Amino acid sequence: MPARRDVDVADLINRARHADPRAVARLISFVESDSPLLREVAAGLSGTPAQAHVIGLTGSPGVGKSTTTNALVSALRARGDRVGVLAVDPSSPFSGGALLGDRIRMSEHSSDDGVFIRSMATRGQLGGLAAAVPQALRVLDAAGCDTILVETVGVGQAEIEVASLADTTLLVLAPGLGDGIQAAKAGVVEIADVYVVNKADRGGAEQVTRDLRQVQSMSAGRHVGWKAPILKTSAASGDGIDAVIEAISAHRAWLGSSGELEARRRRRAATEIEAIALGAVRQRFAAVVGSAVLDKAASSVVDGTTDPFEAAEALIRAL
Amino acid sequence: MPARRDVDVADLINRARHADPRAVARLISFVESDSPLLREVAAGLSGTPAQAHVIGLTGSPGVGKSTTTNALVSALRARGDRVGVLAVDPSSPFSGGALLGDRIRMSEHSSDDGVFIRSMATRGQLGGLAAAVPQALRVLDAAGCDTILVETVGVGQAEIEVASLADTTLLVLAPGLGDGIQAAKAGVVEIADVYVVNKADRGGAEQVTRDLRQVQSMSAGRHVGWKAPILKTSAASGDGIDAVIEAISAHRAWLGSSGELEARRRRRAATEIEAIALGAVRQRFAAVVGSAVLDKAASSVVDGTTDPFEAAEALIRAL
Repeated sequence: MPARRDVDVADLINRARHADPRAVARLISFVESDSPLLREVAAGLSGTPAQAHVIGLTGSPGVGKSTTTNALVSALRARGDRVGVLAVDPSSPFSGGALLGDRIRMSEHSSDDGVFIRSMATRGQLGGLAAAVPQALRVLDAAGCDTILVETVGVGQAEIEVASLADTTLLVLAPGLGDGIQAAKAGVVEIADVYVVNKADRGGAEQVTRDLRQVQSMSAGRHVGWKAPILKTSAASGDGIDAVIEAISAHRAWLGSSGELEARRRRRAATEIEAIALGAVRQRFAAVVGSAVLDKAASSVVDGTTDPFEAAEALIRAL
Repeated sequence: MPARRDVDVADLINRARHADPRAVARLISFVESDSPLLREVAAGLSGTPAQAHVIGLTGSPGVGKSTTTNALVSALRARGDRVGVLAVDPSSPFSGGALLGDRIRMSEHSSDDGVFIRSMATRGQLGGLAAAVPQALRVLDAAGCDTILVETVGVGQAEIEVASLADTTLLVLAPGLGDGIQAAKAGVVEIADVYVVNKADRGGAEQVTRDLRQVQSMSAGRHVGWKAPILKTSAASGDGIDAVIEAISAHRAWLGSSGELEARRRRRAATEIEAIALGAVRQRFAAVVGSAVLDKAASSVVDGTTDPFEAAEALIRAL
């Protein structure tokens, strides 16, 4: 990474605002990697409220998430949106890899200058993905994206966290994977605003739909006033994608009219602020590891002269 | 949970020191569940350095970990040790369940008053398992355990953290599960002090041994001066368990003579102090969620008047 003086952040942000894909890529790599430029980028990107509609896509491997993303990008482009795609792997400390491989397969969009595709992971970013993803969203927002698709891999707590950063969350399922129950277990069903039952041309889609309805009837739902629709697609052929786009638009309209959009974005910002603050504190702790202060405290806990809670309080006071 | 005034912590600790199993169980449930009594228990247990030799057992499901634990308990009892068994599930917020089911199967030890068997998980304990496990170890130590076996489930970061709390870490593997490679991926191989290839009466044990040797030759090893032995067992019949006990004793002797025991315990205490301190900070953050302070900060990030790093700094100052 070049030294601070070699990078003109203001110029990069200006170029990103003019939709220069290389500037966008560079800024996202800064926010992903806890670059010393991160603060400068964040300051430069603030000043205007976010415009883009952020859509989270989640679901187990094998359900056709990338194909669905691909089909959604085509449909959004057809209506004239500028589109950002952020592929996030919460389980990996490295970006690229398998995810990037999937992204490269989105070849029909890779030469479209109205589409920005980035794959990211957390490489020691202060506050982890809870902080890094909102920053990357700001970069894509600055580049004029109308819609940003955030795709995550796996089903788990980290994924739920990332999905909860979206304005609208799509849960993609497919028959034959037992995903209805798997997803319910992980608590993903509760946070979804739209269910997409993909590969609906295969047998078993009805069963997935029934399972979802049952889980839905048992849970109170994410928000009163919006009942998550269950839509069948065959993303590979594009069947059913228009209905998904319509459901997303309807959800967006509901978010705006109900005041929920503002509420969600405030929650997202609160989570982000908390994550950054906690990250900063953790960094200060990390700085004392191996230091005389912690070493002395540890020795006194080992020999029994201090209890660990006393020692922890002393450590907090020392920071 | 009874109110604080109903519990005489000093009396409980006194009874635990006289090896009363009910007092031990009660104290462990306090340290597991972030009871308001936790601090009092911790203070009451300090005053003397730890005596027990702590052995961590780790390995994928299906390798026969519980059977190995069972066989080790028998062998340790035969040499006159008082033994504690702590079954930890880092992936579950609940104790009991499958793990407890396994423990109950250790029926030959359940009526032995020289064996304390406890299953634990983290139920919101300040600092998670990194803080809860050392506290539970202190309780078992106070009850006069000579050896404490800490058994964890699954292979992952949380498990490595728990395993790293032990004086001696055993990695249990079995043929036919591809565990050599799985474990290597998760970084468990590097932290093991003794390898146990269980179910060695089945075909494939040689292959697991060869795989381990190869991984071992590639990694520098956890510590200079100790080369982790690879031992074959059939824990169900008890074959090879004596050699494991000997290897554990040899490792214990090496820990003492090399100064590594002291170093490991200091590191364990440092991790514990850090985890408690970080947990305390996180708790203070959690207390501001939904508060006017964070809400106002979040709103100003949403409308673009503040960047999230500025807001995070203000939050830290406010705490």
